[in-house]
Amino acid sequence: MVRISAETLTRFTVEVLERCQVPAADARLAADVLLASDRRGINSHGIARLENYVMMMRAGRINPVATCRVVRETPSTAAIDGGNGLGLVVGPRANELAMKKAEAVGSGWVTVRNSNHFGIAGYYPLQALQRDLIGFAFTNSIALVSPARGSGRVLGTNPIAVAFPGQEEPPVVIDLATSLVPYGKIEVMQRLGRPLGEGWATDRDGRPTLEPGDVMAGGALSPLGGTEEGAVHKGYCLSAMVDLLSGVLSGANWGPFCPPFRIDQPIPGRTVGAGLGHCFGALQIAGFADPGEFKRNIDEWCRTMRAVKPVDSAEPVLIPGDPERAAEAERRVHGIPLPPAVIADLEKVASLTGIPFPA
Amino acid sequence: MVRISAETLTRFTVEVLERCQVPAADARLAADVLLASDRRGINSHGIARLENYVMMMRAGRINPVATCRVVRETPSTAAIDGGNGLGLVVGPRANELAMKKAEAVGSGWVTVRNSNHFGIAGYYPLQALQRDLIGFAFTNSIALVSPARGSGRVLGTNPIAVAFPGQEEPPVVIDLATSLVPYGKIEVMQRLGRPLGEGWATDRDGRPTLEPGDVMAGGALSPLGGTEEGAVHKGYCLSAMVDLLSGVLSGANWGPFCPPFRIDQPIPGRTVGAGLGHCFGALQIAGFADPGEFKRNIDEWCRTMRAVKPVDSAEPVLIPGDPERAAEAERRVHGIPLPPAVIADLEKVASLTGIPFPA
Repeated sequence: MVRISAETLTRFTVEVLERCQVPAADARLAADVLLASDRRGINSHGIARLENYVMMMRAGRINPVATCRVVRETPSTAAIDGGNGLGLVVGPRANELAMKKAEAVGSGWVTVRNSNHFGIAGYYPLQALQRDLIGFAFTNSIALVSPARGSGRVLGTNPIAVAFPGQEEPPVVIDLATSLVPYGKIEVMQRLGRPLGEGWATDRDGRPTLEPGDVMAGGALSPLGGTEEGAVHKGYCLSAMVDLLSGVLSGANWGPFCPPFRIDQPIPGRTVGAGLGHCFGALQIAGFADPGEFKRNIDEWCRTMRAVKPVDSAEPVLIPGDPERAAEAERRVHGIPLPPAVIADLEKVASLTGIPFPA
Repeated sequence: MVRISAETLTRFTVEVLERCQVPAADARLAADVLLASDRRGINSHGIARLENYVMMMRAGRINPVATCRVVRETPSTAAIDGGNGLGLVVGPRANELAMKKAEAVGSGWVTVRNSNHFGIAGYYPLQALQRDLIGFAFTNSIALVSPARGSGRVLGTNPIAVAFPGQEEPPVVIDLATSLVPYGKIEVMQRLGRPLGEGWATDRDGRPTLEPGDVMAGGALSPLGGTEEGAVHKGYCLSAMVDLLSGVLSGANWGPFCPPFRIDQPIPGRTVGAGLGHCFGALQIAGFADPGEFKRNIDEWCRTMRAVKPVDSAEPVLIPGDPERAAEAERRVHGIPLPPAVIADLEKVASLTGIPFPA
């Protein structure tokens, strides 16, 4: 594993995006979102995807110079058309509008259509909490998940993210896909030659399988819950909620019609809206409580959870966001670890764009 | 099982509540919420609880003549103190304010402290969709659920409810507890002498158990996900989100300090806020899309899900809300089925209040 600092990778990303015609301010925004993922230990959604973004822009599948257009608006809501731009740019702009509305009238909710993959969902509520707001982010995504009782790839891994600021304690940061595991986990188990966990996935006929190969050959991930006994209908409901808020309400594609993230994935044969969809929300804390008192109560909530007797004394109860914070602290010191395959992709990006890769 | 019509049970409930000093309009509202549960097949949250509400009011633990007070307000948000009133009255009033704000400025979010159990969470978004709003409801509740990695009863079953209206198709109605199963399910398995499902619950030391008795003897329900392999940290995150929105943001009690629902349950030794907490949200559909077009898209979404190839052809893919709709259609014709234990409780209510039970 090569280790490179987040700052160095950010500079590289900005230069690469600018070379792809992305305006300078947008390139900085996109790099910030992308590297937030690597900083927080979510390798799958960060710089490992830069090559694909470049390929998508070069192929004309993402518009590097797109601008956001507000298509509907009320004092506390808006619907945005992202112009088929980078989700890494459209997302922060839409989230900014939600936050501004929350600061002005107490809450702000903004849907987005005609966008693309927006990075980690957790990035967005992290912006909100710096402004004494509780932020929410939802997005739909390429279909990989079956509905409860159903077979095949019908829904995305459709994440839910929300964050709450503490005073002395770090914030509570929730960011979860509504599938039981991410698709990347299936690939990891395949590489390791190990069986999947119970309830993680089904084969092409919707039957439970422990074989990674069955999932890759047209099978699907299961919603959170996994099996009927595990209350998989609840994971399906959560995935549906995210799809309806991000996809249907925004006028984007939804369910099996979401556009793929990767350039080598097949494009659905039918279009039911524009691009990918997101939904952002922000609530002004002062609209409900004194912000200082609220944050002290969040501290107290965190301390109460940490004080719960653990089942295994070596594994204390965590606060949502703790694993990402631990990764962030480690990576701030040692840099972002990049496996050989990602280095190879970034060297390809370097040769395509003429921006030297700083390794 | 005796069968009695929802209308007859509603009249009985209204008269009983009025006899307990609940004002007439409030009694009608509370009865509407309570019977919505029985109508929709959720026996646990409906008239089966009337006796307990009566006992709580007679003991002075719930104030039948409480009024709601707005303690903070912005154009799109409010924080309400429920005056320790019936959640069945405070809930609809707070939800009404959230809906009014959404109609006025696009979205409305209202937290509630100093309330009590508010019935089924799904009742509230069902009100919203009649007004072309997307409604949300969250509430915290007495601690029965352990956090991921932790032991004991720390969090409530903290439900999430949201509904989306269709045009020709019925609405998508999501209403799920963030625990894997409800506590009532443990009691049912105990009565049947059957083992619990994998991951449903833990014993008093936090170890997985299949024995209902272990849960009753100080064990706890597991969050959705159940086990580490099942991604129980996600269910914990969802339960935390609901507790932070409903409990901490509102200034109510939270986590292990939530007051009990039943008069025979112990009261926590510490108070960290006022009563139980809820959070209601409403989004004006027209703020994001043409409502007619949105509803037609919801129809299309529902039809797409129903058309997914089922794993078992006898069990087609459902739309969230289908099971409750089926129960509602059956009960509209045949009445609400009441088991002998509930009849006995209602006869006790009748003798306490002097209102004859119509059986």
